[in-house]
Amino acid sequence: MQDNTNTTEVVRDPSAFAAELADEHVADIAEILNEQPTEVASEVLARLPLDQAVEVLDQPALESSAEVIATLPEDRATDLLSGMSADRVAEVFREIEEPRRSALLDRLDDDMRLAVLRLLSYPPNTAGSMMTTEFASVPTTWSVAQTLDHIRRVERTRETVYAIYVLDPRTRKLVQTVSLRRLISGEPQAPILSVARPRRPVTVTPLTDREEVARIISKYDLLAVPVVDRGQVIGIVTVDDVIDAIVQESTEDVQKFGGMEALTEPYMQIGFGEMIRKRAGWLCILFLSEMLTASAMQFFEGELEKALVLTLFIPLIMSSGGNSGSQATSLLIRALALREVRLRDWWRVALRELPMGVTLGAILGLIGMVRITLWQQLGFYDYGEHWVLIALTVGAALVGIVTFGSLAGSMLPFVLQRSGFDPASASAPFVATLVDVTGLVIYFTVALAILRGTLL
Amino acid sequence: MQDNTNTTEVVRDPSAFAAELADEHVADIAEILNEQPTEVASEVLARLPLDQAVEVLDQPALESSAEVIATLPEDRATDLLSGMSADRVAEVFREIEEPRRSALLDRLDDDMRLAVLRLLSYPPNTAGSMMTTEFASVPTTWSVAQTLDHIRRVERTRETVYAIYVLDPRTRKLVQTVSLRRLISGEPQAPILSVARPRRPVTVTPLTDREEVARIISKYDLLAVPVVDRGQVIGIVTVDDVIDAIVQESTEDVQKFGGMEALTEPYMQIGFGEMIRKRAGWLCILFLSEMLTASAMQFFEGELEKALVLTLFIPLIMSSGGNSGSQATSLLIRALALREVRLRDWWRVALRELPMGVTLGAILGLIGMVRITLWQQLGFYDYGEHWVLIALTVGAALVGIVTFGSLAGSMLPFVLQRSGFDPASASAPFVATLVDVTGLVIYFTVALAILRGTLL
Repeated sequence: MQDNTNTTEVVRDPSAFAAELADEHVADIAEILNEQPTEVASEVLARLPLDQAVEVLDQPALESSAEVIATLPEDRATDLLSGMSADRVAEVFREIEEPRRSALLDRLDDDMRLAVLRLLSYPPNTAGSMMTTEFASVPTTWSVAQTLDHIRRVERTRETVYAIYVLDPRTRKLVQTVSLRRLISGEPQAPILSVARPRRPVTVTPLTDREEVARIISKYDLLAVPVVDRGQVIGIVTVDDVIDAIVQESTEDVQKFGGMEALTEPYMQIGFGEMIRKRAGWLCILFLSEMLTASAMQFFEGELEKALVLTLFIPLIMSSGGNSGSQATSLLIRALALREVRLRDWWRVALRELPMGVTLGAILGLIGMVRITLWQQLGFYDYGEHWVLIALTVGAALVGIVTFGSLAGSMLPFVLQRSGFDPASASAPFVATLVDVTGLVIYFTVALAILRGTLL
Repeated sequence: MQDNTNTTEVVRDPSAFAAELADEHVADIAEILNEQPTEVASEVLARLPLDQAVEVLDQPALESSAEVIATLPEDRATDLLSGMSADRVAEVFREIEEPRRSALLDRLDDDMRLAVLRLLSYPPNTAGSMMTTEFASVPTTWSVAQTLDHIRRVERTRETVYAIYVLDPRTRKLVQTVSLRRLISGEPQAPILSVARPRRPVTVTPLTDREEVARIISKYDLLAVPVVDRGQVIGIVTVDDVIDAIVQESTEDVQKFGGMEALTEPYMQIGFGEMIRKRAGWLCILFLSEMLTASAMQFFEGELEKALVLTLFIPLIMSSGGNSGSQATSLLIRALALREVRLRDWWRVALRELPMGVTLGAILGLIGMVRITLWQQLGFYDYGEHWVLIALTVGAALVGIVTFGSLAGSMLPFVLQRSGFDPASASAPFVATLVDVTGLVIYFTVALAILRGTLL
């Protein structure tokens, strides 16, 4: 929305800037502050009205929340934190260093401190770590009118009131979920359970992975899902947190598929050393594995010397195997993530990829043979007297390598998932490397079979 | 949830099966029916109570909706369609063939037919094509109590009532958006605008791309965004449609990044011929481009003959360029999609990738030189008397190629976006192919510079 903001402009007067921002949507303010140095963001947030500053800090999109809280005077920081939602406060605390962290934590009121400590105790990327503890609940003994009154009173302090959790008054265990739309349509004097759907509520546990939380919210079209521990609701995950999680997850998937460790910060913010570390690791592993190609080439050195013409097609043939493997891997990573395919379906997939690979390989093989024939006949290049056999070698090798690439590429995500890894770690470069070494062996084996007695 | 459903089991008695399903959540019913042949799904949906059958068909996850509607008796099909939401009916009609399509369309009531025809008129993947026309709106002249009464009455026929659109009574243009949570907290006799936030409502146009709609809903934490045409609300896009769109978009992105055309159907459902078409196109383009490597090798044939040892490292060096390029491309595709980086930032990115590429190349170059030195000294392989120069050639070529790979890989998404293409079309195989040809030229140029007078 603020496409024309000049990112290099230095803001001279934070008060004037704060006044200027006061009319913007908090999501826009967060975006504008992201383009300013942390000191400016800090000064602006010190000058905005408390309510609005709290709302801005509550935006997950604001990148400098932790730095801002860390640099503001302790009084102002405490006021801001006390107004924010517990899940965002926990996120901020994850990034604040000691002794500031303990000092601020001590100044929060007991409820907030307990909520934050509890959120911090769950592993990252679980429902427990992303949930908010500010949800609306009522006992089963209440009427529709009582509940509605309660919702009106607490509306401002709850992250959402569109889902209301009905609890057993004695055990405080979750009995039903009522939606606000059904609630307002109910008879005022009727019991609250009369407007609930007679169906076991959909829940997650605090340790449910965020991808699974997203899948459940999306499948059941929920606005929030309760996080339940031993029957009791300890928090809820709302649909907007889930969208953020899905977007972040798909960024990580693309980066991993590109052959690197996923970044934790935006591209332009991450430091040079950190970026090198995220990229060099996989590059080195791939490089070391790819060294096997040099060993394979050394092994076939005798053949290479006798038929140098074979080297001309090495990059072409190897890359085709990598490309078909990369296609198959990308297909299966998503199919597994979306549960279109289960681990037990691996053989069905293999049975599909086998004829697929042969067909694709035959298409490429044909093009390769046509190319060699054309070049030979048109006089662009002389492949020698055995050019027909060379064309055959290239064609047959392509069938073999593309088939192997499709099979290996499609099976790799299964192998990773079976071994407890994320199938999305099967990157395009990883598959290409896997296929390259085997591809060379296939190529020279085919060459030996076809050219023995002539060139070899 | 239904992990143990036996997919191969043939259902004998559709009535019994329908009775069994009646207690399940509609999202689960849709998932179970997905694992059955279309005829079974059809028979089950013919036997479920009408309300429930409508709800199941309203699930975007149900894959066979169109086939079911096409095979059911026309009366039942019309009843079902009339109960469904207009956006889902439009989706179903997109897949039904003539003359059935016109026959069914004619039997819908006028409102539904007009709504469906309008939805069908917008291009796919736009706000217009994914919106629902069933939203809640009231004139500015109404009070809070009047609005609440109206919402209670229409609640069952609206996709969401959590966002209420307040329109100018004369022009019917959108004035404000009111949330249900603010509405229930308002004074009954106060005018409806008293509970609206004094802020221009966030809107999209019917032609806004679905990715942009998702970004806006996620940025402003909305439950629905109004689609506005000449000031009037013509529909809304709800958060659950957006989640489906984001998930689909990220599947397409991974598939495109893997070097193929995005699929429109799940992996196991798509036909063999269709799959070949989606994969062979890009494979052939990549293969034809990669043929330039054969031409480059032919060009350097003289050097190859003199120093066969150079060929040993061709796959290793080329793949390193492709891998670093693939990393850079995956980074920039996501950074551009998330607007972390704008088109105008291309030179900033280039200035980051240049030293990054040099550093990464130096790391790999060092490993490569150590490898050659070790093999030579330990007697694993004899690279000849000039092995030091060969090691230097490999090291220097790696610096050049990895730098070129990082630069080319990071700039490609910018070039695509600037030319009006989706930056996500920059696939890993595409980048690898781009880098391969240049990589060969860099390798042989470096070799000529270092080895002239000795090996070459």
